Amino acid sequence: MRLALSIEYDGAGFCGWQSQPNGQTVQDALELALSAMAGHRVKVSAAGRTDTGVHALSQVVHFDTTAIRPCNAWVRGVNTKLPRSIRVLWAVEVDGQFHARFDAYQRSYQYWLVNQPVAPAVMAGKAGWFHQPLDLQAMQEAIAYLHGQHDFSAFRAAECQAKSPVKTMHQASVNAFGSSLVFDFCANAFLHHQVRNMVGALVYIGKGKYPPAFMAELLAARDRTLSPPTFAPDGLYLTGVGYDARWGLPSAERKLQLGIA
Amino acid sequence: MRLALSIEYDGAGFCGWQSQPNGQTVQDALELALSAMAGHRVKVSAAGRTDTGVHALSQVVHFDTTAIRPCNAWVRGVNTKLPRSIRVLWAVEVDGQFHARFDAYQRSYQYWLVNQPVAPAVMAGKAGWFHQPLDLQAMQEAIAYLHGQHDFSAFRAAECQAKSPVKTMHQASVNAFGSSLVFDFCANAFLHHQVRNMVGALVYIGKGKYPPAFMAELLAARDRTLSPPTFAPDGLYLTGVGYDARWGLPSAERKLQLGIA
Repeated sequence: MRLALSIEYDGAGFCGWQSQPNGQTVQDALELALSAMAGHRVKVSAAGRTDTGVHALSQVVHFDTTAIRPCNAWVRGVNTKLPRSIRVLWAVEVDGQFHARFDAYQRSYQYWLVNQPVAPAVMAGKAGWFHQPLDLQAMQEAIAYLHGQHDFSAFRAAECQAKSPVKTMHQASVNAFGSSLVFDFCANAFLHHQVRNMVGALVYIGKGKYPPAFMAELLAARDRTLSPPTFAPDGLYLTGVGYDARWGLPSAERKLQLGIA
Repeated sequence: MRLALSIEYDGAGFCGWQSQPNGQTVQDALELALSAMAGHRVKVSAAGRTDTGVHALSQVVHFDTTAIRPCNAWVRGVNTKLPRSIRVLWAVEVDGQFHARFDAYQRSYQYWLVNQPVAPAVMAGKAGWFHQPLDLQAMQEAIAYLHGQHDFSAFRAAECQAKSPVKTMHQASVNAFGSSLVFDFCANAFLHHQVRNMVGALVYIGKGKYPPAFMAELLAARDRTLSPPTFAPDGLYLTGVGYDARWGLPSAERKLQLGIA
């Protein structure tokens, strides 16, 4: 039987999502807990492979098991076996053809940026930080250039394994909450480091180093070496994964509503 | 010369505010950093002594020093010497008569409660959690009984050192943000564990164990043994301290704007 789970995690204590020999990843911790519940070795596939320090409010995974357990065992039961920085939000039985990664038609990310002279203390590791004042209007003008289908090579990490740099951005917006800025992105898929690289460029525009139209130039040039640096992972959240309704999954969309004012 | 500072800290990694022989408190860490900047031993006095695991968005302290430094040295300079879970927000020179504790005419606290079946992962340690549905309207009705001057003995910890259990509550409210509830309290002063005890009683009312009028009965009985248990420290934030304008301090009020929806 195939099961789909939605997972929340704090990425700060892990070496990213994807399993590694040292075992210090979110996938390793999750597979350990699921295997203990299943009574056999479990391997999971995830919608998005997040980097070290990146969080998820709603990652989606699937796995196969021969164990017959009530759905609640895969939520409350597995949660008792997980570190408190990882939680299963829901579990449902799915069609054996469902694949968490290949059937996802869109992903959503948010980036939480604290914009104040002093770095966040309570939210250290949970938010990015920029100390100089940022021009919200300039950033809003710049981010609009990202809408639609583009070759996003300007924001693609060298080690990216995607077949094509062409993706379709359904949403790209930035809003202020108190002294925080929250960036919202939704696309069919994202390149490696794409959100952190786009946020890096937007911050350079926000601090006035470049005008908003610099974003259009970056996209057109398709050259990563022209783009500003990758922003910190701390403020990045995978907030949702979209699947066709025929799979019958619960909603896998959870947004931050954050700020300190 | 006397200086006043506003401090933000994540209480999760400390044994509360107040200095202890083991040195694992916020006060110990702050005095170590200030002493290094001053070049002599510094002792600070704080507006509110927070418990283990309790956070502050705006604690206020004062201290005396013979060192002549620009105000920025007491902010950016001291911040480089602090763990990242503590940050100085501002520093100003004050009249030698100013006392952070005795001159505070009011304190504000917020309690962030995540109300969903599964415990928070990303915000573990930063928010309280209750798994059963809570009746917001019943809690709003109950919390209104706390307004005004009362003997708050029903919510006073045994080890409380306050001279009187009579305090004046200027604000007591609870609102929903996504799946979170945020409680706001403002009073001239608070008894030991008072906010956590009030939140414990409100949660019992919210889950339907008692009607809203139970809050009035608890206040009238002035008996801690009749009250529901103390709620966890994780979601408690000292959010502000009020001083007379004649002291010329910057604002020391910072509120959470939080939630995941």
